[in-house]
Amino acid sequence: TTTRGPARCCSAVETKISPLFTLGKKFHLDDVIEAQQFDRDTLNAIFEVAREMEEIEMNPSGSQILKGFIMATLFYEPSTRTRLSFECAMKRLGGEVLTTENAREFSSAAKGETLEDTIRTVEGYSDIIVLRHFESGATRRAAATASIPVINAGDGPGQHPTQALLDIYTIDREISKLDGIKVALVGDLANGRTVRSLAYLLAKYKDVKIYFVSPEVVKMKDDIKDYLTSEGVEWEESADLIDVASKCDVVYQTRIQKERFGERTDLYEEARGKYIVDSDVLDVMQKHAVVMHPLPRLDEITVDVDLDPRAAYFRQAKNGLYIRMALLKLLLVGW
Amino acid sequence: TTTRGPARCCSAVETKISPLFTLGKKFHLDDVIEAQQFDRDTLNAIFEVAREMEEIEMNPSGSQILKGFIMATLFYEPSTRTRLSFECAMKRLGGEVLTTENAREFSSAAKGETLEDTIRTVEGYSDIIVLRHFESGATRRAAATASIPVINAGDGPGQHPTQALLDIYTIDREISKLDGIKVALVGDLANGRTVRSLAYLLAKYKDVKIYFVSPEVVKMKDDIKDYLTSEGVEWEESADLIDVASKCDVVYQTRIQKERFGERTDLYEEARGKYIVDSDVLDVMQKHAVVMHPLPRLDEITVDVDLDPRAAYFRQAKNGLYIRMALLKLLLVGW
Amino acid sequence: TTTRGPARCCSAVETKISPLFTLGKKFHLDDVIEAQQFDRDTLNAIFEVAREMEEIEMNPSGSQILKGFIMATLFYEPSTRTRLSFECAMKRLGGEVLTTENAREFSSAAKGETLEDTIRTVEGYSDIIVLRHFESGATRRAAATASIPVINAGDGPGQHPTQALLDIYTIDREISKLDGIKVALVGDLANGRTVRSLAYLLAKYKDVKIYFVSPEVVKMKDDIKDYLTSEGVEWEESADLIDVASKCDVVYQTRIQKERFGERTDLYEEARGKYIVDSDVLDVMQKHAVVMHPLPRLDEITVDVDLDPRAAYFRQAKNGLYIRMALLKLLLVGW
Repeated sequence: TTTRGPARCCSAVETKISPLFTLGKKFHLDDVIEAQQFDRDTLNAIFEVAREMEEIEMNPSGSQILKGFIMATLFYEPSTRTRLSFECAMKRLGGEVLTTENAREFSSAAKGETLEDTIRTVEGYSDIIVLRHFESGATRRAAATASIPVINAGDGPGQHPTQALLDIYTIDREISKLDGIKVALVGDLANGRTVRSLAYLLAKYKDVKIYFVSPEVVKMKDDIKDYLTSEGVEWEESADLIDVASKCDVVYQTRIQKERFGERTDLYEEARGKYIVDSDVLDVMQKHAVVMHPLPRLDEITVDVDLDPRAAYFRQAKNGLYIRMALLKLLLVGW
Repeated sequence: TTTRGPARCCSAVETKISPLFTLGKKFHLDDVIEAQQFDRDTLNAIFEVAREMEEIEMNPSGSQILKGFIMATLFYEPSTRTRLSFECAMKRLGGEVLTTENAREFSSAAKGETLEDTIRTVEGYSDIIVLRHFESGATRRAAATASIPVINAGDGPGQHPTQALLDIYTIDREISKLDGIKVALVGDLANGRTVRSLAYLLAKYKDVKIYFVSPEVVKMKDDIKDYLTSEGVEWEESADLIDVASKCDVVYQTRIQKERFGERTDLYEEARGKYIVDSDVLDVMQKHAVVMHPLPRLDEITVDVDLDPRAAYFRQAKNGLYIRMALLKLLLVGW
Repeated sequence: TTTRGPARCCSAVETKISPLFTLGKKFHLDDVIEAQQFDRDTLNAIFEVAREMEEIEMNPSGSQILKGFIMATLFYEPSTRTRLSFECAMKRLGGEVLTTENAREFSSAAKGETLEDTIRTVEGYSDIIVLRHFESGATRRAAATASIPVINAGDGPGQHPTQALLDIYTIDREISKLDGIKVALVGDLANGRTVRSLAYLLAKYKDVKIYFVSPEVVKMKDDIKDYLTSEGVEWEESADLIDVASKCDVVYQTRIQKERFGERTDLYEEARGKYIVDSDVLDVMQKHAVVMHPLPRLDEITVDVDLDPRAAYFRQAKNGLYIRMALLKLLLVGW
């Protein structure tokens, strides 16, 4: 059991079962496990706190909101971008960080210790755990075990909810609305958990239209299409990026994941060059529209695009900081 | 030479030779090298400070006792559990941490630099060094070189004194006494430095009785048995875990270390399943008795045991934090 | 773009082109890229701040000059000595640190992300970047991209300017002058970037005489010799270490870099034993002269030399801390 006063209020074990959030007199957020756990009100609340975090981050004297709290970043596979973003978030709020960059070779895991046992030990040394794991569902297991909050920083092919949150937050910040937007999801739609989570969250908004633009071998899977249909979200597949880009508010490009093609490098090379965001795409895009990308990018967005103000992907990466600051604040000291 | 004011008083080079402790007007602790260096009075003093640390850790506003001090965790082999425990201890007291998780591939060590040269460099960048090394005796060499305190966080097959301290502290916290206790050491008694160190420390208390319960291939070695006999500690070997468990205050289970069996996996498998702490063992244990384990555990304690209040192993892991907080305070700012 | 108030003044993008420094009402230092960027006035200014840092480091209550600032140590190859030195510097001044010890296996770099994209992401999570890279010129590219200061912590066979600065600073602290000194550069002069950078900086002072003492296979290359000649610096090659040592103020020994010899271990072994600094060398050295070494050392300086007060190499390592503290202060909050 945790013994840190402020943490206790936010990690009540008895409310571990869904709904993970209750909006009332006090906003409750116990763990961050998957994109689906968030409803519109919760998203709005998180985004409101994230906006406050932008102010705090700009303040050179910094913040001490989380002074005295320790975050353990327990990463079973390396992801420096995500890790640095979380660790920066904690430090910008005055908190402390314990890091395990490669917990898979963690002597204990290597010796056969269960994730549950590891969590029971690490929760004794920290106030919140940020978990990156190679197995889908690992965060849910960790959260069920831990008496302190757990944040999913990506678990295998499963979820990466803070990425989904920062994506939606970026659209809101860049386009100033979420209802009624048109979004193109481009590239590797079969393997990218990013676009899958984003599609889930977009379904919470009204009159959203989604275009899927991808090579045949990596097209969006039926489960997401069926989900969108069941939620009344309009979607269509298209092979014409220029046409789609001219209509959309957001062109969300993704990297073709070479590692998923195995020895079929011919298929990879074919898929890779098919839909590139370049100056031709920019030329047809509306003035208020933006290009997004979860990064890292290879050449699926040409570097000349970077100079256009509609290139939002580095601002998007920065928004990850604000979202993670907001989540840490909400999980550790509450609304 | 160290130039940090407060550290100087605790790292007097001229008193590096034993006795490492002098209890008088001022309690002195220069380095933590091996379990044998502690006498009963010193153990009592450390445990008293550890109890204060429990209070400090529970205080949400935290402590700044070690503000301005830097601890370097110089780990030549990974041990995330031990490292996180030390780093949390330093941060809970307001101190800072520099981490080297894999100093063995440290470019300098790889290039042939001696441990002594590395220590002379690192002591310029820190106020205390926590050393984990693959060679027995490494900490003693480091402490002889350094003008700042050095703590042994495990050196090869040799010592792991902070584990021994937290084990004894846990028994004291759980059973409320150390004199007159009966302790079963179970499992891999040949290879586990934990049980060897624990046996040494138990010998400092009165009327202790130790039971060794282990597969034949990994039974306790004669040096420890001879030492216990010479110190007047009663011990016996037994093959009947149920009988022993019914008599003991502490059942200290350990993992059979597969890595020591080499290619003889048949011997490993045979040894591994022989003495399991499960509900049958719990059933015969006294109400006040506890099950301990240095962790990680595999299946030598079944998971259903976790739910019993007598399962003390996760509390034991947490006690490691308090013991390390106490040692850091004693080494850096004194009694 | 950076949003941190205090950092902004020191990272004006419009002054990224050389001269990197302007000494006037306000001292400006934007990035630390190479030894050649520093003129005598700048060096004097840095050394003056480094002296202040010695005072600060000795003060047990510490400093909060850089409170609220975050340094990202982005290391594409491990160099624990340099990393710990920078991280200690930041923490001694009250700043925070984010660490990437092996950015080469950084998932993003491994996936083909450019250094520029990585920098654009990391600058969103920090106020200053310390970059160690395997490619010559990497820091210059990073600094051209980043809107926050970048420090070169070694880029491949290229530059390691903070090492050169601490070397010059050490000579100044030990010998109390830089004009008119005689310096022996000994050992591997072909492969060591340290001695090359040091030669560049020494050329900024008057009446310096440099002696090159090295095995034939690793002698100083012509570009440096030509540069010294063009700058009017006297130099000569010698095979007689004893004779040279008797005349010099500084004997700067270096390690023969085995990794550069490939399979020709015979050549390595021959080169390695040729010029050793031992008690015979000490015997002929002047009383005020010093032995320096960038570390790590193998047996090119015998361990008995360590006990002589003229052995300056561990003080030299410590000076690296003061120089890095000074640079961090100058880059983040200015003069």
